[in-house]
Amino acid sequence: MTDRVTLKDVAARAQVSYQTVSKVLNRQTRVSTATEKRIHDAVRALGYTPDQRARNLRAQRSYMLGYSWRPDSPNQVNPILDLFMHSMVAAADAVGYHILPFPHPDPEDHIDKYRDLIRTGRVDGFVLSSVEYQDSRIRFLQREKFPFVAFGGVAEPSAMYVDVDGTEGMRLATAHLIAQGHTRIAALGWPKESRVGELRLAGYVRAMRGAKLPVRARWVARGTGSVETGYQATQHWLQGGERTRPTAIVAVTDVLAIGAMRAIQESGLRVGADIGVTGFDDTPLAQYLTPGLSSVRQPIWQAGQNVIDLLVHCLEQEPLAQTRVVLNPELVIRPSSLLHADNTSEIAITHNE
Amino acid sequence: MTDRVTLKDVAARAQVSYQTVSKVLNRQTRVSTATEKRIHDAVRALGYTPDQRARNLRAQRSYMLGYSWRPDSPNQVNPILDLFMHSMVAAADAVGYHILPFPHPDPEDHIDKYRDLIRTGRVDGFVLSSVEYQDSRIRFLQREKFPFVAFGGVAEPSAMYVDVDGTEGMRLATAHLIAQGHTRIAALGWPKESRVGELRLAGYVRAMRGAKLPVRARWVARGTGSVETGYQATQHWLQGGERTRPTAIVAVTDVLAIGAMRAIQESGLRVGADIGVTGFDDTPLAQYLTPGLSSVRQPIWQAGQNVIDLLVHCLEQEPLAQTRVVLNPELVIRPSSLLHADNTSEIAITHNE
Repeated sequence: MTDRVTLKDVAARAQVSYQTVSKVLNRQTRVSTATEKRIHDAVRALGYTPDQRARNLRAQRSYMLGYSWRPDSPNQVNPILDLFMHSMVAAADAVGYHILPFPHPDPEDHIDKYRDLIRTGRVDGFVLSSVEYQDSRIRFLQREKFPFVAFGGVAEPSAMYVDVDGTEGMRLATAHLIAQGHTRIAALGWPKESRVGELRLAGYVRAMRGAKLPVRARWVARGTGSVETGYQATQHWLQGGERTRPTAIVAVTDVLAIGAMRAIQESGLRVGADIGVTGFDDTPLAQYLTPGLSSVRQPIWQAGQNVIDLLVHCLEQEPLAQTRVVLNPELVIRPSSLLHADNTSEIAITHNE
Repeated sequence: MTDRVTLKDVAARAQVSYQTVSKVLNRQTRVSTATEKRIHDAVRALGYTPDQRARNLRAQRSYMLGYSWRPDSPNQVNPILDLFMHSMVAAADAVGYHILPFPHPDPEDHIDKYRDLIRTGRVDGFVLSSVEYQDSRIRFLQREKFPFVAFGGVAEPSAMYVDVDGTEGMRLATAHLIAQGHTRIAALGWPKESRVGELRLAGYVRAMRGAKLPVRARWVARGTGSVETGYQATQHWLQGGERTRPTAIVAVTDVLAIGAMRAIQESGLRVGADIGVTGFDDTPLAQYLTPGLSSVRQPIWQAGQNVIDLLVHCLEQEPLAQTRVVLNPELVIRPSSLLHADNTSEIAITHNE
């Protein structure tokens, strides 16, 4: 290990007392300009850095922000939450903080992990993702008056959050299909218990009603976000006759959309030309599917920056212009949702276009 | 913020002095069983936890392991390194450590970030990934005698690392194509400066030579790992006549393989039946490509566990059976590399099969 340079080393080199060095560096006293210069020269020459641990103990701060996320399984990744992590690490670093990642705990000791990190002074605040209705973490942190920011909308009053407008994202995707002449559009959603899923489906309903198109209950399928769910629902829809079946499908995830694409292709129809499909999340490989999958892209990098900005402003007790940030997603259009897809280039549509 | 329960609160409740509580909890003194029980009861009742910051300062430890990774761009993710992070966070948590992620620094202040984290006592050790030839971080950390473990092979003597055998991975992929009757196999690699890329290509050469098949210089293309590189090299190879062009292509990444698949499909040939293709990394969506892409899967979760195991053993000064761990990858076979792909199910082939 490195031999640490101490205040005493600096004092010896600057030919002043230990106490003088300490007071000058902490700006608790004034000395002659010459002495001050000698001290600062010694600090630079020896490469002295104050111990962050001692500094943190004095300040009762750790400059760490706890973050736990739910991996799908040990062999899967969630690209959205991972990109979110990259963004937060960069944003925190820029303002002198670090992210402390910890594993998503079992439901039964959900709160224990948070309590433990607070009590041991490990973190100054938390970032929450995968927030649920009546999330016990939020109840706990609000009771403890411990700072946190959620990624995803939160109903609890006074809770700070950054959200991406999922309703707007699905509205964009549905309106894009309607603009191409589709009138019979089906939707693949999550189970009703999913707040995020219901908000996304609301965008589908909004676009349909806005165009005075009917929303049929049998054309809204809900299930787990698996390829199989999307595949089975689509297979079922395609059994209708050519004049009555849906001509387009919007999905609340790319994985559901992939299932829809499979069912369409297996039935001998063409994705895009015969049945338009859109996904949600713009997963890294969505562009490489055949055909490339149109998808709603969330501004994840921006969300990570905003989350850290809110949390650090709160910790530093600086005024905040807003405590709830809602970002708009954009629709990335690829051949899967185009009737005439000669052009394989991507088009991005955002709220204001 | 939570009102912290202090040693004084415990002392008041247990009706002993502050010093007694401190000494008993730190096992520096013995008291009567009754007193000890009163103290422990008070600790439990009040939920007292020692301040980790104070404990760290005394121990001159942080129980944090620094890790920095190179994101491809703010809008891309590296699923491999992200899964590695998940694994390390879980492994560290299980032994009382945390991962401290920090942004990959610019080349010019590469070392400053590492030096700063050491000098401020922020971390006890580092995990390095994306290691290069003559990596300045390794030179620096070895000079400072500061503990680290690399993910990826390292030439420097006495450096600890966990590596996945890329040569073996490409050998498996090439041997699988040879076993199906392919004799004219081309390879898509990275530029020669890439140590990882050259090790993977060595596996291609080993399998070809093992089967006494010729390795032709014009059938080994090197370039950046982009779709475009794989596309152009494959387009060039396909211009050869049907009897002389390659019938299979192994690639050192999935993205290069996707480029090859595009060129094959655009030329009117079938991936699998006409030209077999394999990738490397088993990217999350590889299974959803059309056809599904055979790929070499690295045991990333295992690698993360082993990296933390090595580093923590080193920090705790516990004996290590080995300081260099080399893991074998497996080949996941999908229709892209099968001549007769009626069966869309996956097959995994590992070293010992």
